[in-house]
This record gives sequence, C-alpha cells and structure tokens, in this order.
Amino acid sequence: MTQLARQAKTAARQLSTLTSEEKNACLESMAMALEENRDTIKRANEQDLSAAETSGLSGAMLDRLKLDEKRILGMAKGLREVAALPDPVGRLLDERVRPNGLKLRKISSAIGVVVIIYESRPNVTADAASLCFKSGSATILRGGKEAIHSNRVIASLMVDAAQKEMPKFPAAAVQVVQTTDRDAIRELLSLTSYVDLCMPRGGEGLIRAVAECSKVPVIKHYKGVCHVYVDRDADLRMAGEIAVNAKVQRPAVCNAMETMLVDRQIAAEFLSSIAQRLSMHSVALRADSEARDMLKNASSKLRVTGASEQDWSTEYNDLVLNVRIVDGVREAIDHINHYGSGHSDCIVTGDETRAQQFLNEVDSAAVYWNASTRFTDGSEFGMGAEIGISTDKVGARGPMGLEELTTYKWHCLGNGQIRT
Amino acid sequence: MTQLARQAKTAARQLSTLTSEEKNACLESMAMALEENRDTIKRANEQDLSAAETSGLSGAMLDRLKLDEKRILGMAKGLREVAALPDPVGRLLDERVRPNGLKLRKISSAIGVVVIIYESRPNVTADAASLCFKSGSATILRGGKEAIHSNRVIASLMVDAAQKEMPKFPAAAVQVVQTTDRDAIRELLSLTSYVDLCMPRGGEGLIRAVAECSKVPVIKHYKGVCHVYVDRDADLRMAGEIAVNAKVQRPAVCNAMETMLVDRQIAAEFLSSIAQRLSMHSVALRADSEARDMLKNASSKLRVTGASEQDWSTEYNDLVLNVRIVDGVREAIDHINHYGSGHSDCIVTGDETRAQQFLNEVDSAAVYWNASTRFTDGSEFGMGAEIGISTDKVGARGPMGLEELTTYKWHCLGNGQIRT
Repeated sequence: MTQLARQAKTAARQLSTLTSEEKNACLESMAMALEENRDTIKRANEQDLSAAETSGLSGAMLDRLKLDEKRILGMAKGLREVAALPDPVGRLLDERVRPNGLKLRKISSAIGVVVIIYESRPNVTADAASLCFKSGSATILRGGKEAIHSNRVIASLMVDAAQKEMPKFPAAAVQVVQTTDRDAIRELLSLTSYVDLCMPRGGEGLIRAVAECSKVPVIKHYKGVCHVYVDRDADLRMAGEIAVNAKVQRPAVCNAMETMLVDRQIAAEFLSSIAQRLSMHSVALRADSEARDMLKNASSKLRVTGASEQDWSTEYNDLVLNVRIVDGVREAIDHINHYGSGHSDCIVTGDETRAQQFLNEVDSAAVYWNASTRFTDGSEFGMGAEIGISTDKVGARGPMGLEELTTYKWHCLGNGQIRT
Repeated sequence: MTQLARQAKTAARQLSTLTSEEKNACLESMAMALEENRDTIKRANEQDLSAAETSGLSGAMLDRLKLDEKRILGMAKGLREVAALPDPVGRLLDERVRPNGLKLRKISSAIGVVVIIYESRPNVTADAASLCFKSGSATILRGGKEAIHSNRVIASLMVDAAQKEMPKFPAAAVQVVQTTDRDAIRELLSLTSYVDLCMPRGGEGLIRAVAECSKVPVIKHYKGVCHVYVDRDADLRMAGEIAVNAKVQRPAVCNAMETMLVDRQIAAEFLSSIAQRLSMHSVALRADSEARDMLKNASSKLRVTGASEQDWSTEYNDLVLNVRIVDGVREAIDHINHYGSGHSDCIVTGDETRAQQFLNEVDSAAVYWNASTRFTDGSEFGMGAEIGISTDKVGARGPMGLEELTTYKWHCLGNGQIRT
C-alpha cells in the first residue's frame, strides 16, 4: 500500500506539468480505447457477473454490476464530456497587491492523490478517474470485490491508451487496489504523507466505516434525509407539485424527500389536496397523529401508519414518506436541523421574510425556495459532471464537479521584498 | 463532553441569527470587559504562574503564559480589530441561473462548532474565540492545563459581557473545556454530529496527537520546513537579502527558512557573498560536502557541519540553516516536494520561465518569487487577523483569516421548478 501511494504521489507531481491540451488528448484516447475494446471489457465483466451469481448477489446488485454495450459507450461519452469541460486548475481566484508591492495571486491547483472507495457499479472507475485526472490528481480506486475484473480492465485500458497518446503519462496516475482486504484500506487511509483526500461513495455503512478509520481527509455524505416544508403562505398547487416530484420522481436517490413538514394553518387543506396523488403513486405514509387523521380523512386508499422517533431521521430510498405538522417556519427549521442530514431542504412559500429565514438558518448544503430538492446534482447545478455530493463543511459542500476537486495555493510575486 | 458539544451546536444555530451589528457590539463589550477586569485576569493568571513555577516550567514557557497589562490590553485591541473587519458570512461567492430558471447562489456561511486546541499562551483564548464568533461559529477551547485559570476567566468575562450587551447571546458560544484529561479530548473529537472542525495550534507533537485521534476534520500545519532556492539567474544581492531575512528576522516561527538551495552555477559566488552575513548573525550551517567546502573557504568564522538526511526535513526554529547545492530548478523543486512541509517556499531568479515552473510545481501553500517566505501570515496577506496557517489541501490552505473560517451553502431560488 505504501508503495502504491508513493507511486501515486510521484504521478501526481508529473500530472501537474501537463497542459490542458495534453490532458484532453489523453481523455480522448481513453474514450476511444474503451469503445474499441468493449468486448474485452464485457468479457472481464462476465467473469465478475458469473462469480457474483454464484455467490448469490441480488438481481438489483447484478444489474448495477453489469456492463453492456450501452453502459460502455456511456463511459466513453463521459470521458469526452470531461475533456470538453474547462480545466479547473490554474484559475485566478483572488488577487491583491500589498502596500509593499508584493502581489498575491490565489490560484486553483490540484489536490494530489485522491482515493475513491465505491461499491458495485464499475462505470464509476472511468468517471472518477477521469474527473480526478482532469483536475490534476492521481487516483487510487478501490471498487467492490465483486467488480474487480471489470475495474482492472477499465483502468488498464485507460492508462495504456493515455501512454500511447503521450509517453510521459505516468502509469500510476490511475491505479486499482488489487486486494480486497479491509486492513489494506485502513493502511492506505493512514498514509497522510502520500494521500490527500478520500471520497467514499456508496451506502451509509461503507461511508461510516471509511470515515471511522481514515486519517486522511474524507469528503462524503452519509445519507440524504431531505425535507419539504409547506408554509402557510405557500401556493398549495405549487407545493403539491414540488412535494410529489421530490418524493416520487426517483425515490432511490439521496436528494429525494423523506419528510414533508406542513404548517398547521394550511395542513388540512394541503394534505387533502395532495392525498390522492400520493396514493396514486403508491406512497406509504408515516405521520404524526394529527397528520394521520387528516390524511385518512382525505383518502381512504392511503396507507398511513404512525411515525416513530427513528423514522424522522431515516432515509427510505423508497416510496415512503414521513409527514409532520409544525407550527410555522421556526419549528420546521428546528426539525430539519435536528433530524436532517444537511443535504437538501426546501421551503414552499410566497413570504420572502420566512423564505430568507429558512435559507439562512437551515444548515444544509443546498436550501431551496420553491423548487424540488431533486436538483442537487452536479449536472443540474451546471458543473458538467459530478464525482459526489458533500454534506461536510470543510472542503467542498453540495455537488462536487471539477472545480470542487481542486485546492488552491498562493503565488506571491515580489521584487526583493523582505520583512522588517 | 457530549453535553458540551451539543450545547455548542445549539449555540451555533443561534449565532446564525445574529446580524453583523449585533456581533460587533458584542465584540466591543467583550473588549471593554477585558480592559475593565484586567486585575481579575491578572489574579487568575498569577494562580497559573505560581502553579507553573512550582511544577518547574521553563522560563520561556512562563513568559508565554504570563498576562501582563500590555498583553491584556493587546487582547482587547484584538477584539476591536475583529469587530472592524467585514462580516465573512453571507458573501455571494458565485451565482448562476439554470436554463429552467432556477437561480443558484453560492453563499459563505458559518462552519458551526469549532474546537481549538492550543498550548500555553492564554491570549489565544480571546483571539480564537473572537474570530470564530465573528465568523458565526461556536468555539470549544481547550488550552494547556497550565493556563486553565487564565483561560476560564477570559472566556467567562467575554460571555458575560456579550450577554449583558445582548441577552440572546448564547452562553455556550464560547466554552472552555474544564478537564485536562486526554481521553476527554478524544471523546470530544469523535462527536461528528456536533463538532464541525478542530484546529490544533502548537508544537508538532500536539498537532500529530490531535490529527491522529480526531474523527472530525482537522485543519493544521505540522511544521514549517521552508526553502529559498537561489537560481543561476538570481540577482545575487537580492537573493542574499531574502535569504538572510527569511532565516534571521524571526527564526522561531513557521515561515522562517530552514534550507537554502543554491544552483551549482552560481554557488561559489553566492555562498562567498553571503557567508560573512550569516556568520555575523551567528547562523550555524549544515551543508552537503560541496557547499561545506565553499562556505569554509568563504569565511573561517562560519560554523559549518555536514547535513544528515534527517536535517533536510527538520524545522530548527533556531539560527540553524541547511545548505544544499542543486543542479537547477528541477532538482530544487524535487528536493522541496520531497523534504518540505508544503508551507512556504521561494525561488529567487530573473528568469520568468523557471519562476513559473517553480510556482506551478512546488506543492506548497505559499510559493514566492523574489520575496521572503516570512510574509506567510494573515495580516501580511491582508486578512486582518489570523487563526492559524494550513498546509492541508481540503478546506483552507495557507494563512486563515475570517473568510477561511467559513464554509458555503447553495441557495436555490425557484418558482415551482420540478425535475422531469
């Protein structure tokens, strides 16, 4: 592990000497290599798939593991999209001249060595490696053991193609951890001299395990317990649209709503207006006793049970929704800051003062006023691509694109200044 | 510890509702309270001092611990300077409107709960608490056990004064850890639900111990092994000024030079030009064999010994300097990236290409071209005040002022947008 990490560090130094054009040419040849060698990729993937079937992986997991023609071409397309994005390194972020004439320039720069730990989907290999590469960092990839053959072949095709394009491309710029031993990961994440950042992607269990053992900085979100608060001054039709969209459009993702908070003043009216649509979408509800009665009155078809204390902080990733009646925006904010995950939360209201209070006081990466929480996503935010979403407060927060994969340094330009 | 941290989190939420004017009024009354109660502070400090003398603390440590009239007035002045700085929270960092009309605003916001761990100087209590408070965060202070009485009285004077000024000021916005038990710190730094950031300040041992045990993000620098590289195209007079300044102006600080790298092409000439001045300032030299001969030839008064492998990565904090001859900028960069601490490094040259290469490839927080490394400092960078210096790449890098003590969040303003 030490050798692997040391090689990555050396590679990262070499990457800092590449021009944008050189990086983009490498990405293009990587994309072509994935396209041209799709049969090789499929064969490696079949090895993984048959081992996974034997070991009894679920159908959903097998589907995530599978690389068909479409997914392989999708990876190649992703690499070309990364090539087309502006280089995030070398941007001038701030500039000032001090009274002594010293000129300070704050410049975005590469992070260095990034470890990505992820679960079954092998296309993450190409996505993550290309984003790190474009942002000037070397990547150490540790995918699930069920995808090891697929991950290895994808990474080695990318490295070979880049070296063919440009012989000075360092082979250790993209490395796949060959072992699936947990202690090896713990060791890797203790190498603070070589590893600059770790980004775990996957279920809460994986992420907690990584954050727990890592000595290097980790950027992550554990889960997405997102809220929509419907205020007394909401346009109730708009609130219904937003709430239904945030819950049902893609319930398995982290920016989907898990809890709807409703201002008591409009609760009966709003819940009766939305009940039928929720029932139509087969949403099961867990509600406080007051909301439960209102919902049952509104539609006999709705499945409504009582919400437990634990439900308020649960990410269902499913067509399940908590509902709670609150006494206005103060109680809504307190509920969200207490039970939420700091991911994405929304207020629906026509009242600007209350909206502003919600935006300022809800302590989350993305806070919405009159829009679905489902937009917390790199491409929806105009970042072009996304390597993950952070609910941390040190480093990037919210969706992370190329710019969020950089750090900065100060260039200090003088003509002989000394300190007196 | 859990209760302390939970209280801090609640306090941080309350701080987010204060206006800039309210925060500044609190800082002003805190400053007045320190001035008016300087006898109380001195009495508490005398308790610490006499206990420290009994336990045999060194003279230098006793001096750092001592709070005299001047230092107390200095703390008060520091609080007023923080009040005078612009509010770092609520700045618009980025703004974009998406094709669907969703308006995204990236806004600087408070981090939340910040733990500061520091050694003997009790004036850090007022400095750190005021910077965190102004940036909207609650502070948990853990100073050295030798300063416990001083730290407690400073913090309680500040809190009392702020509450008198503004009854809604939360008492838990500034808390001093009452115990000096190490396990308590470990526990505090495992409370990821409540604590957002830890900043250790002090010697490398303290900082490593904190970084090693913390589960919350830590921003830090272990040490400052700073370099000046004198290139073949340097103005040798300027190089001499910069090198002497970087070494002798204040050798005990982290941005002082520890190693001078000299291009072989001008080594003999440069070293002979600087030898006498180094000897005059009583600088002891540790050099590679080539430089050693040149230095001995240049001045018989110079104390020169051979440099060991370990010397190249040692922070002396003293009038000791490593000297190494290198074959040009490439070798200088490689030396710095290998042995340096990523803090502050300088190239002296008239050649722009080589300067640019050095600025781009040296992987340090501050990289200088023709100026002393001693400028890496919050006030020299125009930040007004400094809470520390970071050599990390996640979160702030380089000097940290108020802006570097904030995170950001996304405000997403819509008029009913849903995802399709």
